[in-house]
Amino acid sequence: MISLNDAYHILAATIPLYVAMILAYISVKWLKLFNPDQCSGINKFVAKFSIPLLSFQVISKSNPYKMNLKLIYADVLQKVIVLVGAAIITKVRSNGHLNWIITGFSLSTLPNTLILGIPLLKSMYGDEADVLLAQIIALQSLIWYNLLLFLFELSNARDAHMIQLSAATGDSEARQEAQGIDKREETNSRTLRRTKIMLLLLTVGKKLLMNPNSYATIAGLAWASISFRCNIKLPKVVENSISILSDGGLGMAMFSLGLFMASQANIVACGKRLALLAMVLKFIVGPVMVVPSIVFGLKGVPFKIAVIQAALPQGIVPFVFANEYNVHPDILSTGITVGLLVALPIALVYYLLLGL
Amino acid sequence: MISLNDAYHILAATIPLYVAMILAYISVKWLKLFNPDQCSGINKFVAKFSIPLLSFQVISKSNPYKMNLKLIYADVLQKVIVLVGAAIITKVRSNGHLNWIITGFSLSTLPNTLILGIPLLKSMYGDEADVLLAQIIALQSLIWYNLLLFLFELSNARDAHMIQLSAATGDSEARQEAQGIDKREETNSRTLRRTKIMLLLLTVGKKLLMNPNSYATIAGLAWASISFRCNIKLPKVVENSISILSDGGLGMAMFSLGLFMASQANIVACGKRLALLAMVLKFIVGPVMVVPSIVFGLKGVPFKIAVIQAALPQGIVPFVFANEYNVHPDILSTGITVGLLVALPIALVYYLLLGL
Repeated sequence: MISLNDAYHILAATIPLYVAMILAYISVKWLKLFNPDQCSGINKFVAKFSIPLLSFQVISKSNPYKMNLKLIYADVLQKVIVLVGAAIITKVRSNGHLNWIITGFSLSTLPNTLILGIPLLKSMYGDEADVLLAQIIALQSLIWYNLLLFLFELSNARDAHMIQLSAATGDSEARQEAQGIDKREETNSRTLRRTKIMLLLLTVGKKLLMNPNSYATIAGLAWASISFRCNIKLPKVVENSISILSDGGLGMAMFSLGLFMASQANIVACGKRLALLAMVLKFIVGPVMVVPSIVFGLKGVPFKIAVIQAALPQGIVPFVFANEYNVHPDILSTGITVGLLVALPIALVYYLLLGL
Repeated sequence: MISLNDAYHILAATIPLYVAMILAYISVKWLKLFNPDQCSGINKFVAKFSIPLLSFQVISKSNPYKMNLKLIYADVLQKVIVLVGAAIITKVRSNGHLNWIITGFSLSTLPNTLILGIPLLKSMYGDEADVLLAQIIALQSLIWYNLLLFLFELSNARDAHMIQLSAATGDSEARQEAQGIDKREETNSRTLRRTKIMLLLLTVGKKLLMNPNSYATIAGLAWASISFRCNIKLPKVVENSISILSDGGLGMAMFSLGLFMASQANIVACGKRLALLAMVLKFIVGPVMVVPSIVFGLKGVPFKIAVIQAALPQGIVPFVFANEYNVHPDILSTGITVGLLVALPIALVYYLLLGL
């Protein structure tokens, strides 16, 4: 059971996040300390430096030879279910925009495991939580953040493609063209299609090759494979070179969130309806993790950890990316702030339900 | 004597500083990742958040009831000697600008004690270095950075005053007026002078009251006085709230330095002559610390520590302030980069000289 002392540790880990966010909020809203361009400079620093280096640290410290395979399979299946589900829903509603798939995916499957998850679940289930969560975090950085970046770049490239088309052929054709891409399964015309898709993927691939996060995660995995096999550690000077910029990463990410919130008219930046949708996606769709966990035979404490971590509020990294690519940052910022407020009671409800 | 292992520890502490700086340099010079406004956003974050919080941490952890008074008196006397010396020289040369006093003071008396000093001097003189340097660092933040900010604000307020005057009365009169302020000891006319100086100081005082560094240092001293008297510690949640933003402070400061360097045409941004002057101020005028140390009877290891720390390369915080107020940031950035390159051999020369 969670003791008062545990609760204090959880608060001591989460309140500072709010402090960083509120400081940023005040510094823009009231003190007018940063203009929008300066804010975007700070967000860019977080997206291009802090987070990649943080990802490298997390991945390189997780032993790739000692993974809980059931947990990993369940994690992958959960994400696939949500992705497919989101793709179907957005198509049915016919405003089938890739951006909504990205946002739905971020909200429901990428929780704040690192900052909130570790202290919270450790207080619930002890040291086993630490080891299992480290694996989920490594997977988040290695696979899911890269997939997220791929989707962001794809959305970007498609936008650029549409703009080019509309400049060349006029608006109505461009719209038809864009719809064509959306409904490519339904159409069989046009021999240029395959070439176009290849070109699109090439653009996206090039962009990803320029993204420091891709390199950081691959380097992290490579180093983890070597270091746990041969039992060697990073030289102190390399470790210090990484931590000198990654140390402040999470604080800076929250600061960047606060800067963004201050630029919006309302704290619930996306409006109440979307905020409610975000909460449903997060706290009800997220823990659908229970299904793949049962499918792959997770039991006991690992099962409980898998479910509760999925019910944690939304992570900060997806917001930083969303802000960088300007894809619904308002929804993700609301998801984080409201999510953090209700995180503790919701986690406790799930904890008690799983304890029955 | 310094062992190979010690040398490695020193390198492991200094090379990461370069890495952060070079990353920033590359990201602007070659990758064009940040525009000038975005760079200034990052510098502002460092000046208004990271450094004040870092100062609070350093001051609040230094026991104010166990200071080495001789060391502190010597430190104060050194600064006074340099300030008076700089005031005399700039007046003699008649381009008597406050900004040169500020820059001379920064270069010759505010070394990089925190990052470079502690590992270097600990390897030379053991744990005693740790305790003494912590006191010097606390004093730096508490008194000297605040004095520096006072001078920066004074320079700012004078500039604003001049601009107002020149707008009202035409350029030539404004120049006379400005010269009048410079040479106020020499003139006895005008009854408005005293009122004007009072107004100037009032403006400066108001500005300092809005500067987070003033609050952070005073709060740090207040808390240190309470915590070491009553033997209590900061609650975990407060400590975490501070460290979440201060943790990355030094890396961010170096990053900001790299951003600045990239904005200049040349790495030796201020030109070779001024760079040479900066090195002379740093490594020859700085260790004049030997005089006040003898005056106040410092002996043995504390004497050696006092002298060698004064010969450390220039600190990063004065650069961040100089950049924020736009007062010779080119000279200070050169001072840091060239200084860091030659720091180790110069410190060793002083070490050997003192060992004779």
